[in-house]
Amino acid sequence: MLTAADIRRHLDRLTKPPGSLGRLEDLAVRLCSIQQTLKPETRPRRMVLFAADHGVVAQGVTAWPASVTHLMVQNIVNGGAASSVLARTTETELRVIDVGTLGPELGPKANYLYRKVRSGSRNLAVEAALTVGEFEQALAVGREQAAVAARDGMRVVAAGEMGIGNSTPASCLAALLADVPVEIAVGRGAGADDSVMARKRAVVSAAVTAARSRLDVEPVAAIAAVAGLEIAALAGFFMAAAEQRLTVILDGFIATSAALVAERLRPWTASVMIAAHRGAEPGHGAALDALGLVPLLDTWEMRLGEGTGALLLVPLLDAAAAIIKDMASFDAAGIAAHE
Amino acid sequence: MLTAADIRRHLDRLTKPPGSLGRLEDLAVRLCSIQQTLKPETRPRRMVLFAADHGVVAQGVTAWPASVTHLMVQNIVNGGAASSVLARTTETELRVIDVGTLGPELGPKANYLYRKVRSGSRNLAVEAALTVGEFEQALAVGREQAAVAARDGMRVVAAGEMGIGNSTPASCLAALLADVPVEIAVGRGAGADDSVMARKRAVVSAAVTAARSRLDVEPVAAIAAVAGLEIAALAGFFMAAAEQRLTVILDGFIATSAALVAERLRPWTASVMIAAHRGAEPGHGAALDALGLVPLLDTWEMRLGEGTGALLLVPLLDAAAAIIKDMASFDAAGIAAHE
Repeated sequence: MLTAADIRRHLDRLTKPPGSLGRLEDLAVRLCSIQQTLKPETRPRRMVLFAADHGVVAQGVTAWPASVTHLMVQNIVNGGAASSVLARTTETELRVIDVGTLGPELGPKANYLYRKVRSGSRNLAVEAALTVGEFEQALAVGREQAAVAARDGMRVVAAGEMGIGNSTPASCLAALLADVPVEIAVGRGAGADDSVMARKRAVVSAAVTAARSRLDVEPVAAIAAVAGLEIAALAGFFMAAAEQRLTVILDGFIATSAALVAERLRPWTASVMIAAHRGAEPGHGAALDALGLVPLLDTWEMRLGEGTGALLLVPLLDAAAAIIKDMASFDAAGIAAHE
Repeated sequence: MLTAADIRRHLDRLTKPPGSLGRLEDLAVRLCSIQQTLKPETRPRRMVLFAADHGVVAQGVTAWPASVTHLMVQNIVNGGAASSVLARTTETELRVIDVGTLGPELGPKANYLYRKVRSGSRNLAVEAALTVGEFEQALAVGREQAAVAARDGMRVVAAGEMGIGNSTPASCLAALLADVPVEIAVGRGAGADDSVMARKRAVVSAAVTAARSRLDVEPVAAIAAVAGLEIAALAGFFMAAAEQRLTVILDGFIATSAALVAERLRPWTASVMIAAHRGAEPGHGAALDALGLVPLLDTWEMRLGEGTGALLLVPLLDAAAAIIKDMASFDAAGIAAHE
């Protein structure tokens, strides 16, 4: 077992004042701890984006129409979205999985899979968003992608999402599973104004109250009632990635809500995770705290989703790996180490 | 003239909620403003490291002996230092210029130049560290490197330093030129303990008092008295880079003290700069404020120097450039833009 202290001891032998690379050293320690080696690998790597729609948009909880989900799936697949561009820049393979949008299957594309469990979740304000069976099917879609990533030799994976309205289920899950107060758990998502915010807060508050009463008795049903298909798939992806000991970069608020689900269903899932950033969504920091994760880009105020925050961390992870693998030691450089 | 508002307007036409990439969008705006184009370039790029020694180490203001400067120059040139490793990882060309170490010239190396003005500065606690003539020679060494970078077609440049003891002159310059109180301007550098700190504070306080009385009458002499050869070279590099309208990534506290010198001698030099990070040195934030620069990696607690902070920003600059150049617009993706 390679401990954090072992790794720091190694870092302190390298030609720099101890600790002087600050959080880059923290990142190296985390990466080496997860991979249990002083020679961590960050290539090849893959970002898996899960897309789905949400019945709760009928409540007016979002600024964008549900049709945008499918248009954005096409845009991502065609290479024009922020995630497409950042995946190329960071040399990260990108694939998109439709686990439940309202749109049709796209034609065959190398970076796209159609694994639809159903066309959108139900409206969680009036009924359970997903049945236990649907939730478990979506979980299995995510699990499959983690298994494929491991089989394809990926050393680092990340997962992101596209789903208009999905900050509402994410807020529900943050409140339900990390005890984040509703007024903090509910944020502006991708652009809610004050009246949208008021509706969103009312929806989340009611749904969480109902789910909380069932959480101890039937946890999966309680979670499924306020979740979404891409969130369930993300949770399954994280659980299986942790079982395979893949290094996982965690994206923003929605992905973190899925990590809360995964951690609840399979404790220690978060132990393979590196939190990329703290997003602008106020509940995100609290959810990361509950997982014991410290975000690296913590003042970047991102709120796009699509795995974009995780992709920005990729080159910094490369830098952390290079430092610990390639720097000379004081001994090798002929310098008396500083005590 | 391409204004920040023009650039934001363009960013808002791309397929993402307006502003949702947070500080990555701020970085894109800054980059496009400096280059005056919506198609900014970040390659090729070069990091120039200036190295020199400091007579003030005789006062016991540092935890490391002066001999380490030259050993680290060798280590950087040989590829084993943090800066060497990060330059490789980020595909940044690296060259080291000895502008005044105590060590001998190294053998011929592609990434090394010997441009020694003198073997170390004088002890600023007892006399002027540099004469005006020496200061101007070092400035010219830096200017030459910016001209060479421009001639070589570099689109982004950065400059860093190696010099045991150089946080003492940097603290003097931050106090002198940005009115940073001495107790904030003096930090632990690369590892000072409490007794070293007390000596450093006394040295800086006395030197700044003396320099301040001359600053308005003979500014270059006042600055030279508390500067260092690599700091002067950095200042010259920045001034000439600004004249050439190169995009400059600013590194840590020492480089920022040189930027204060450059801005004093040539106003608007900072207008081509992007501040990479806010280092652990407490005076750094105040010096950046004085230059009107906002650091991107502001919680990374780095204190190594050697250009390492600037190198970490390079891939994030690539990401910012890619976003604005390569993302699809709402029109192109067939999505009605959100008002």
